[in-house]
Amino acid sequence: MWTLAQIAEYIGGEVIGDEHYEVDSITTLKNASAGQISFLANTKYKKYLATTHAGAVIVTPENASAVPHHAIVVNDPYVAFAKAARLFNPVKQHQPGIHISASVSPASIIHPTVSIAAQVVIEDGVELAEDVVIGPGCILQQGVKVGKGSRLIANVTVCDSVQIGQDVIIHPGVVIGADGFGIANDKGTWIKVPQIGSVIIGDDVEVGANTTIDRGALENTVIGNGVKLDNQIQIAHNVIIGDHTVIAGCVGIAGSTQIGKHCVIGGGVGISGHISITDGVQLTGMTMVTKSITKPGIYSSGIPAEPTQQWQRNVVRYRQMDVLADRIKQLEDKNK
Amino acid sequence: MWTLAQIAEYIGGEVIGDEHYEVDSITTLKNASAGQISFLANTKYKKYLATTHAGAVIVTPENASAVPHHAIVVNDPYVAFAKAARLFNPVKQHQPGIHISASVSPASIIHPTVSIAAQVVIEDGVELAEDVVIGPGCILQQGVKVGKGSRLIANVTVCDSVQIGQDVIIHPGVVIGADGFGIANDKGTWIKVPQIGSVIIGDDVEVGANTTIDRGALENTVIGNGVKLDNQIQIAHNVIIGDHTVIAGCVGIAGSTQIGKHCVIGGGVGISGHISITDGVQLTGMTMVTKSITKPGIYSSGIPAEPTQQWQRNVVRYRQMDVLADRIKQLEDKNK
Amino acid sequence: MWTLAQIAEYIGGEVIGDEHYEVDSITTLKNASAGQISFLANTKYKKYLATTHAGAVIVTPENASAVPHHAIVVNDPYVAFAKAARLFNPVKQHQPGIHISASVSPASIIHPTVSIAAQVVIEDGVELAEDVVIGPGCILQQGVKVGKGSRLIANVTVCDSVQIGQDVIIHPGVVIGADGFGIANDKGTWIKVPQIGSVIIGDDVEVGANTTIDRGALENTVIGNGVKLDNQIQIAHNVIIGDHTVIAGCVGIAGSTQIGKHCVIGGGVGISGHISITDGVQLTGMTMVTKSITKPGIYSSGIPAEPTQQWQRNVVRYRQMDVLADRIKQLEDKNK
Repeated sequence: MWTLAQIAEYIGGEVIGDEHYEVDSITTLKNASAGQISFLANTKYKKYLATTHAGAVIVTPENASAVPHHAIVVNDPYVAFAKAARLFNPVKQHQPGIHISASVSPASIIHPTVSIAAQVVIEDGVELAEDVVIGPGCILQQGVKVGKGSRLIANVTVCDSVQIGQDVIIHPGVVIGADGFGIANDKGTWIKVPQIGSVIIGDDVEVGANTTIDRGALENTVIGNGVKLDNQIQIAHNVIIGDHTVIAGCVGIAGSTQIGKHCVIGGGVGISGHISITDGVQLTGMTMVTKSITKPGIYSSGIPAEPTQQWQRNVVRYRQMDVLADRIKQLEDKNK
Repeated sequence: MWTLAQIAEYIGGEVIGDEHYEVDSITTLKNASAGQISFLANTKYKKYLATTHAGAVIVTPENASAVPHHAIVVNDPYVAFAKAARLFNPVKQHQPGIHISASVSPASIIHPTVSIAAQVVIEDGVELAEDVVIGPGCILQQGVKVGKGSRLIANVTVCDSVQIGQDVIIHPGVVIGADGFGIANDKGTWIKVPQIGSVIIGDDVEVGANTTIDRGALENTVIGNGVKLDNQIQIAHNVIIGDHTVIAGCVGIAGSTQIGKHCVIGGGVGISGHISITDGVQLTGMTMVTKSITKPGIYSSGIPAEPTQQWQRNVVRYRQMDVLADRIKQLEDKNK
Repeated sequence: MWTLAQIAEYIGGEVIGDEHYEVDSITTLKNASAGQISFLANTKYKKYLATTHAGAVIVTPENASAVPHHAIVVNDPYVAFAKAARLFNPVKQHQPGIHISASVSPASIIHPTVSIAAQVVIEDGVELAEDVVIGPGCILQQGVKVGKGSRLIANVTVCDSVQIGQDVIIHPGVVIGADGFGIANDKGTWIKVPQIGSVIIGDDVEVGANTTIDRGALENTVIGNGVKLDNQIQIAHNVIIGDHTVIAGCVGIAGSTQIGKHCVIGGGVGISGHISITDGVQLTGMTMVTKSITKPGIYSSGIPAEPTQQWQRNVVRYRQMDVLADRIKQLEDKNK
């Protein structure tokens, strides 16, 4: 239970109404009841404001008067919601210690505050800093280093010598530091190019479930500070991702490509290798990027769905475009 | 060994030929030999019917006379094949009990018929119903519930408080209930939005290898009854998938999108967030869906492969379409 | 430390300069210092040749005179680099033996030279040949066979009866032999088609992190010799991939499709089911293949990124193509 005064102080807002009113959880406007707090961050949901049963609502100043009960006024209700939600749902605390079923090399350096869960494998030379949490089934191969406060949720595989910063969250199924896809064609047969770089992950990074980040060929793959990666992203060897860039699910980034800082990359985007995307670029979902992008801005590609019959006709027309262009040219010649 | 009479009874068909003929396995028309049964479900394979060595063939009434040996006549040979194949290949039975290497919390509720394999982790508050099979390396975090008869094949990760229905099959590498991709931009830095919803999976669901289903932000992500998901699908937070919808591999569905019942979604499709697809929609492979679809039917997008030189020319033309349209307009003005 | 003479012998080249010069590692032209060797395989990096500090550089004959210090001359510097990198970074040796935390069935056949790491599960009937390495957390279900010298890095799941050839490398998170996506619609409800085929993987195959290869429905899924697969690839049931084909990350191949030998498939490509791609086909990244390809060559599809405003206009134009074509036709009629 928190009073509105306590919440307002925590999220940096101002109470309009009863400061001593208490709420025990946060939810949507539509589902909230008395004793709960909600928020209005997306104009799409404004229609629920008048009729919400929420005891309190986090809003911008212009919506304050429309709140039926108490309000907390802030400049950015979505950020305020994120903070308030954390207040009601603190990060799960883990008991320090090593589960009896874990296999931990004596040649590793484990801070006494570290929590290591069941069925974990910690190989030689691993170093785990203060308050690190290694969830069940995680595998940390030789020489992996994990910074203070980072949490590997479960079933994460971190290969030899990868370095992970502080306050990083890594979700289940993630593989960091597997060999990059380096092959050379030796008279028709592909031979392996040893991948002798590593992966360096900055601070405050989050990596979504089943995402893969390959180790570099000669130099390192690098994920900057504050980068947020969703699920099932593939990051190839020697990719460099700038600080505070966010990438949605199912994106593939080919080898040696550099992504700038503060980029926002939509789901399912594919980015070719050996190119460079400057800072502040946004890519909408399923965009295909084959060349460097040197100017900040929003970029897109892909043609959205249409009824299949119409799609079939349009595909045929698309293939005739060359001919259509020629026919226009001929008409223009006649009409000179 | 089953007689044709037994098979016909099991699959709901009628024998034409010797009811006492025995077969020991099922295979393709092309590869079958005497003592085996086969089926004709796809007209593409009709060419193999006349020369098949199969002792018996499952066919529709109209193909019965073309079967060289014995036949079982049914209305839907593919469904009949599925059932017959199960007769010859019953679901593997698992010994009840807990493998000595598994780590099972005493604060869990495990039905005595449950089978728990090697290296499994069962955390506090987990509840496993009758006949549940937890394969090797699976991790069930706090409070997970699994319904009667469900099977987690191997190396499946189920995060806190996820609920799985009855007769569900979950293949290796699947991650259910990892945090959704919730972030808020706090003056240039992304902060995490706690993901306090869960995932609810209905009955008779199948989830393919390495698919990920994220937990909801405030409310739950929901997978309906009878839903079949292929491999490497990404289902974001708060997605709702209606009963009996099937989704092929590599599909990505962004957050808060609702998919109707009885939909069929092809491989590699991408679906934007916060939209709604009505019941009975089919999407062909690699379609890009950016807006709600309110009418049942088949939808498509994407342009299929062509020789690269031609593709390069067409891409150039595509980018000139605006100019081409203007040139047509000018010609029309001249020809008024 | 290796002398240039030793390296030249190993990679099949000729030293120009001091044969006795010693180098201890290999790196890029840009980062190399004295005592290191580098290489020039991509003309893009030729600009670094004049100023490199590398004590020696592997080059083609035509670039030999431009090398500032010593050179090793070869026909294919990239292949030579791959070999030299292996010389400096030999494959990690693993101690034979079974880790105490592994769960190994007594009904398996394990060659005494095999190395089995922590938390591994080896079920009944598994056969592991000479020098096989099973990394931590791997799960080999009943009847799996792994050929001589193959290495499963970590957290790999291999389902019942899959056969893996010799000198295969399988990276973390890979799932081989999960059930294919076989379903039949029985009056609105989808029933499972038992997947009773298996997966056969040839020799010298490499499989990237989190890739999935499904078992066949009736016959086997087959990966040829020398095939190299990158990360997060989905290979459906009954796909056959010819020898020495390479496939980049995030590719999806639907069921029963055959890919020829010596194909090169770019990242994010999607290939429909039940088609056939002949030998020697190249597909550029994100290509959508819906029909068989019967002639070797390079194929592409997809429209690359453009600024979003322009993209929106072009999508509108694309949908008007039918109308534009009609308008051209009308103009032509007027101009006859």
